[in-house]
Amino acid sequence: MLAYINITPAGTGEETKELIAKAVKIIEKSELDYQFTSMGTIIEGEWDEIIFLVKKCHDEIKTFADRIVTTITIDDRKDLKNRLKNNVLEVEYAIGGNLKTGGIT
Amino acid sequence: MLAYINITPAGTGEETKELIAKAVKIIEKSELDYQFTSMGTIIEGEWDEIIFLVKKCHDEIKTFADRIVTTITIDDRKDLKNRLKNNVLEVEYAIGGNLKTGGIT
Amino acid sequence: MLAYINITPAGTGEETKELIAKAVKIIEKSELDYQFTSMGTIIEGEWDEIIFLVKKCHDEIKTFADRIVTTITIDDRKDLKNRLKNNVLEVEYAIGGNLKTGGIT
Amino acid sequence: MLAYINITPAGTGEETKELIAKAVKIIEKSELDYQFTSMGTIIEGEWDEIIFLVKKCHDEIKTFADRIVTTITIDDRKDLKNRLKNNVLEVEYAIGGNLKTGGIT
Repeated sequence: MLAYINITPAGTGEETKELIAKAVKIIEKSELDYQFTSMGTIIEGEWDEIIFLVKKCHDEIKTFADRIVTTITIDDRKDLKNRLKNNVLEVEYAIGGNLKTGGIT
Repeated sequence: MLAYINITPAGTGEETKELIAKAVKIIEKSELDYQFTSMGTIIEGEWDEIIFLVKKCHDEIKTFADRIVTTITIDDRKDLKNRLKNNVLEVEYAIGGNLKTGGIT
Repeated sequence: MLAYINITPAGTGEETKELIAKAVKIIEKSELDYQFTSMGTIIEGEWDEIIFLVKKCHDEIKTFADRIVTTITIDDRKDLKNRLKNNVLEVEYAIGGNLKTGGIT
Repeated sequence: MLAYINITPAGTGEETKELIAKAVKIIEKSELDYQFTSMGTIIEGEWDEIIFLVKKCHDEIKTFADRIVTTITIDDRKDLKNRLKNNVLEVEYAIGGNLKTGGIT
């Protein structure tokens, strides 16, 4: 399944990039496939793997912020795998062309 | 400002890629910078530009589905521009390395 | 259509209740039906009415915070009205009993 | 901590109220405090309690739908309890009046 994760610390000033970096390091060290974007991170894995990882990120950031708002959106389909890439490829195929799909071109 | 957009049609079977393709074409033709991912699309622009574009996508998909759930998350900071790319670059700088940032590597 | 609205100011300390109060006053003065909860506000209306109201709330809070994250989830069905109450009533009917539906019992 | 939960089944027609009823029954039988609304359910509890409950609801609905999109927004503050009611009361106090806080008045 795919999960879109957004962690917003509050009460720490608006500069959250150092805190986000701490969370992304945890995701990077995991064995799950992921895509980091300007608005959140997409992870592909099973429910328990995803939740375990998000909890680790949430707890890490919690040590630095008094309040955290963490959003997890899980898109779960019985029949498909490798959706992090295939979802994008299928839509590109449907429109018959390339889309901007990378954070840094 | 940055906006993360997700449009989920319901009541049309689980194959939504044809409908998503119709929405992405509209975004592609606009002049706003965007990034298409497996979970949603990130757009950079001003409030009115973003809302105008999302409404167009929503209305297009509505002609094919009886029910649509559209989520718009707007991250608005007074002081920064080009955040679609810079947010990613800053976190990469903070961790001192590259991250997976593209849907198709 | 129904809209769930959440506005999270950042960079202002974790006490956001004064800012939320400013936004809720704007919603209260509008003619749209709403429900205020501990996590966000649900509004019922047409697309333009909802967006106009959310923009007003967003702009009001923006005068006090350097960064705001505003999430709007729109659930749009062609055929139904008065869903703020009827959605709840229908599920209560389906389970054959009452649910906790108020923030303050 | 507070969690706002939304489960949207896809590929099952737009009438999801029977499926939502199945999930709400599970929440009702738990010992966590909750508020059911027209757009989602708010639960108050600890991380593990909340995730356990959402997983149970997600799995139950998954037996009836080929695709499910589940969103969990967790608002975690170190210092406060009983926020399901107190968040609402504090904003009412700040505006000096009552708000519409129930799904069915």
